[in-house]
Amino acid sequence: MPLVNQQWILKKRPVGLLKPSDLECRTSDVPPLKDGECLVKVKYLAMDPATRGWMGESGGYVDPLPLDGPVMGVTVGEVIESRNPAIGKGMIVAGVGPWAKYIVVGPKGISPLRSGDLGVLAPMDTSTGHDLPVYLHALGTSGGTAYYGLMTIAAMKPADKVLVSAAGGSVGSLACQFAKLKGASKVVGIAGGAAKCRVVKELYGCDAVIDYKSAGSIAAKIKAEFPDGLDVYFDNVGGETLEAALDNLAKNARIAICGMISQYNAPDERGVRNLWNLLVREARIEGFLVSSWFGSPECEAAYREIDGWLKSGRLNATLDIRDMFGDIANAYNLLFTGGNRGRLIVRAPD
Amino acid sequence: MPLVNQQWILKKRPVGLLKPSDLECRTSDVPPLKDGECLVKVKYLAMDPATRGWMGESGGYVDPLPLDGPVMGVTVGEVIESRNPAIGKGMIVAGVGPWAKYIVVGPKGISPLRSGDLGVLAPMDTSTGHDLPVYLHALGTSGGTAYYGLMTIAAMKPADKVLVSAAGGSVGSLACQFAKLKGASKVVGIAGGAAKCRVVKELYGCDAVIDYKSAGSIAAKIKAEFPDGLDVYFDNVGGETLEAALDNLAKNARIAICGMISQYNAPDERGVRNLWNLLVREARIEGFLVSSWFGSPECEAAYREIDGWLKSGRLNATLDIRDMFGDIANAYNLLFTGGNRGRLIVRAPD
Repeated sequence: MPLVNQQWILKKRPVGLLKPSDLECRTSDVPPLKDGECLVKVKYLAMDPATRGWMGESGGYVDPLPLDGPVMGVTVGEVIESRNPAIGKGMIVAGVGPWAKYIVVGPKGISPLRSGDLGVLAPMDTSTGHDLPVYLHALGTSGGTAYYGLMTIAAMKPADKVLVSAAGGSVGSLACQFAKLKGASKVVGIAGGAAKCRVVKELYGCDAVIDYKSAGSIAAKIKAEFPDGLDVYFDNVGGETLEAALDNLAKNARIAICGMISQYNAPDERGVRNLWNLLVREARIEGFLVSSWFGSPECEAAYREIDGWLKSGRLNATLDIRDMFGDIANAYNLLFTGGNRGRLIVRAPD
Repeated sequence: MPLVNQQWILKKRPVGLLKPSDLECRTSDVPPLKDGECLVKVKYLAMDPATRGWMGESGGYVDPLPLDGPVMGVTVGEVIESRNPAIGKGMIVAGVGPWAKYIVVGPKGISPLRSGDLGVLAPMDTSTGHDLPVYLHALGTSGGTAYYGLMTIAAMKPADKVLVSAAGGSVGSLACQFAKLKGASKVVGIAGGAAKCRVVKELYGCDAVIDYKSAGSIAAKIKAEFPDGLDVYFDNVGGETLEAALDNLAKNARIAICGMISQYNAPDERGVRNLWNLLVREARIEGFLVSSWFGSPECEAAYREIDGWLKSGRLNATLDIRDMFGDIANAYNLLFTGGNRGRLIVRAPD
């Protein structure tokens, strides 16, 4: 009797928050493998803001996902059958794959190195002995994104004063901790609501936290924390918060644009009015995609460093694992409604 | 009988274009020199967009010029009397000084190196034998700004595709030519009006020119010139043109922000809505001030290279010299009304 797959299909391009009716859970038999293919049993699916862009008209930074095709996201699974000689049964693979219970992977769907390409999985070295979801977080895309953005794009140096938005989120919570571990003199996180702000301060090592949902201007709150300006801003949100950060730059400040979550569900992107401050402060804004960094020697060295921090207990890599595969649209929306704590991961059905 | 000075005083902070009534030409006797002072007879005053910022409430990137004090700008003159042992009579000095016929310079007003500080002049090596106004242009702040912005901030490489706004202006016209001389595969200038566009193409070596005043979207015109995107944008104007450039970035593009002339007379700065493209294209925007570069070995090497281009006839360093000291507000406004051709310079009265 063949295995039965369950796969989430994009039926409509979402407007605003994802609606359950934008997706359809399609059931089908897993076909017999052809030569060169292997079969992956998905274990965990990470929920990423980037997927929201891929589901839209523009695609964000890739071609938009086709309608009536699978929704894609960062995932980890185990090879349970293989007709690809390079891929052995029992191997753990990770990458950007469909939101599904099983994935049939052709020879072009396997990369020797970590890849950010859609539909491409790479063998994952799990010899460092962590639980699988950790390879979707601190030792996966989130950790890579936080490290690359902070250390290479924003060129953080010891004693820098660092601001991180979406500090309660997957990438933001790691960026805050990496900044402290790498010697920042002050790290301030931005998050929404008293409960989330407490987590940011207590678990993620921020020296202070700004609640963007409480009264008062964000720019004034940033100024209160950094009266002489900030050196690095790790930006996950864009829009009004980016503008507030631009009002508070120290000379030669660097802003790394990791994402713009405030804009993904907005019909019209808000203009940023004060780019003039880049000139006044001789500062820069730079956008990045972690996929450009995967496979570099810096990438491998970073993961070794992060592994060390995890093992010494110096890094709090909070996982928020949900059994919500059957209700995945609502699981996904937790990213945008502030309902998750740390890396949001959905467990695939057994 | 003492010499009689004429000096332009800022009476009101201008709103929109500078009005003659915002300024006052004050006449006074030049006082006898004290120990350590020297007297400079101003020869030429360069008209710079930056001065418009200094005259406003915010000052732009410096403290705003005080009301009832002198208007300041880049100037060159000759020392005609000295009680400073380091400064000899006949020496040529340049820097940011008052819009005046004579300047009394104290010991703190003389720098051994080129300076961007207000009120500080530096001895100028004129041994390369050019006319004095050239030291306000290709061999002065304009040339330095164009070279530093293009080669260091935007990190232009041979074969890059380069876009320059305000390409008919002082800095822009040099940036276009430097880009070609340094091996850009295509250089496109943006300017306003058919006459100015012709100059940009014929005199400043652009491969193509975009007339922002003619019908149609600037973004579409940029796309027609760079179907695969641009590598470098040298931005003098900000606002809508910056947004259009952001829509047309190649991967890893670099934008150098030199100025935002479109915003200086605008009551509300226009927001730039598409910074998301920085992430999609892994690109950066960086602002700069040439004063940070003055005195560096790169600066001196750049001026040697520019001098060589001038002497070999490969550089068209157009000067627009006006005898308008008595009507300086209207001379200055030519920068914003598109009335100048190349570096706008006012000759000081004899």
